[in-house]
Amino acid sequence: MKLCRHGAPGAEKPGLVDAEGRIRDLSAHVADIDGAAIGPVGLAKLAGLDPASLPLVEGEVRYGPCVAGTRHFVAIGLNYADHAAESNLPIPEEPVVFNKWVSCIQGPNDPVTIPRDSQKTDWEVELGVVIGTRASYVSEADALRHVAGYCVVNDVSERHWQQERGMTWDKGKGFPTFGPVGPWLVTADEVGDPQALSMWLSVNGKRVQDGNTKTMIFTVAQIVAYLSQFMTLEPGDIITTGTPPGVGLGQKPAPWYLKAGDVVELGIDKLGQQRQDFVAWQG
Amino acid sequence: MKLCRHGAPGAEKPGLVDAEGRIRDLSAHVADIDGAAIGPVGLAKLAGLDPASLPLVEGEVRYGPCVAGTRHFVAIGLNYADHAAESNLPIPEEPVVFNKWVSCIQGPNDPVTIPRDSQKTDWEVELGVVIGTRASYVSEADALRHVAGYCVVNDVSERHWQQERGMTWDKGKGFPTFGPVGPWLVTADEVGDPQALSMWLSVNGKRVQDGNTKTMIFTVAQIVAYLSQFMTLEPGDIITTGTPPGVGLGQKPAPWYLKAGDVVELGIDKLGQQRQDFVAWQG
Repeated sequence: MKLCRHGAPGAEKPGLVDAEGRIRDLSAHVADIDGAAIGPVGLAKLAGLDPASLPLVEGEVRYGPCVAGTRHFVAIGLNYADHAAESNLPIPEEPVVFNKWVSCIQGPNDPVTIPRDSQKTDWEVELGVVIGTRASYVSEADALRHVAGYCVVNDVSERHWQQERGMTWDKGKGFPTFGPVGPWLVTADEVGDPQALSMWLSVNGKRVQDGNTKTMIFTVAQIVAYLSQFMTLEPGDIITTGTPPGVGLGQKPAPWYLKAGDVVELGIDKLGQQRQDFVAWQG
Repeated sequence: MKLCRHGAPGAEKPGLVDAEGRIRDLSAHVADIDGAAIGPVGLAKLAGLDPASLPLVEGEVRYGPCVAGTRHFVAIGLNYADHAAESNLPIPEEPVVFNKWVSCIQGPNDPVTIPRDSQKTDWEVELGVVIGTRASYVSEADALRHVAGYCVVNDVSERHWQQERGMTWDKGKGFPTFGPVGPWLVTADEVGDPQALSMWLSVNGKRVQDGNTKTMIFTVAQIVAYLSQFMTLEPGDIITTGTPPGVGLGQKPAPWYLKAGDVVELGIDKLGQQRQDFVAWQG
């Protein structure tokens, strides 16, 4: 099942994407695609609906972030060995964890604003994991039972603030618009093995990232279990699980970064695609 | 004006603390003490009420966290020079920023759970800053206009997960129950200069922290302005601004930490006090 949120920013309605790729409105059945809707009971209810019975959403549709009410937007760093190498950082012995401020979450195709004076705005295609049921001290064996589904995330990053402003990465990861999420929340049953998904990202049509979740250092199950040792994961939380090689920071012979006018497109098998116009900050 | 939230966890009601220290219920006037209520318009409305006209809340009252709906719980590290020294870390050239997961927020007197297998659970009395109006790219001169008020925060910290598990501090700061906030949100007009507040913390009656916000390295205004360069601060957000010396990690001749049965009490001038029983994790 592919769930989505459609409509204007802040006024999105819940939707379901049918087998023909058309959006069907779910407003009559659920208030929103949020933590309350994507637990096992909520998903079973939605799965029991006949898509053909749901009203079609006509015309040009904006996708919002595919889940609402996210309270934790957790990010994993350096989770692909080749990306750690291009970042000139050692392969981590346990997951590197940082935070993206939830106010950065936006729709998958909304423009991304390059921060004021930024010279190092970068891209990162990542598998997003959406939590469906509360997780605290869960084992790796049980971890995937807490996952409602998956989505595409662009973990947009400002490398100067991330790496050159002292000690923690959180400064460079949560600028406004730095969290495109969606277009769809694809339920775990439809995705199958989360460790067998190809992913890619292009800048102005040039392919820069090509990867597959099979080369993750820490699997989704390991990450969920690990995080749950020191925080409570809640329904609606998003975990973005790290990026494969090919970010701007890692380009040879020299890094290069995004500028106003650039177009970033990215996608993951089964989870759809995103497209963002990068625009200048307007004071 | 002193605002609070009273009642059972998850069912708190808005309140106002009158001149005699009694809680008056605000439910007839505002849905909650949240971002919507603590902007300039909201506070002016509440300030226009006659406290004597509000119903008294009788009996034993539990305080909840003094603000609801917080989406960002931002923390500043090493913001007192002496505390940086006791942590064996250099005085930072710019604010050290990390994140406390918002699910850790709880009432000021609720028990704190020592995490499973934790040997290094520590205390940190801190001045909490509550945002009243959205702040993005604000100057230091304008920063305090975005502050609704102040509160006490215990930035409970697990030093092993903070410092010995790789790269970022976020792992050690947001365990469930690690964010006691309150008892009161005291409005900025009533607090006056936020850089002239004494603060203290005791463990089992032994005074371990004594400080004053006048020795902060970065002031509240500087911190708000700084954060607003890389994130959007929203009404209801809490910034906890660092701790003075005297944490468990800094004890001489050797660090010592909290264990089940310990009682932590802490307070800040004008902002009230907290008291927490530290309890063992129950699987």
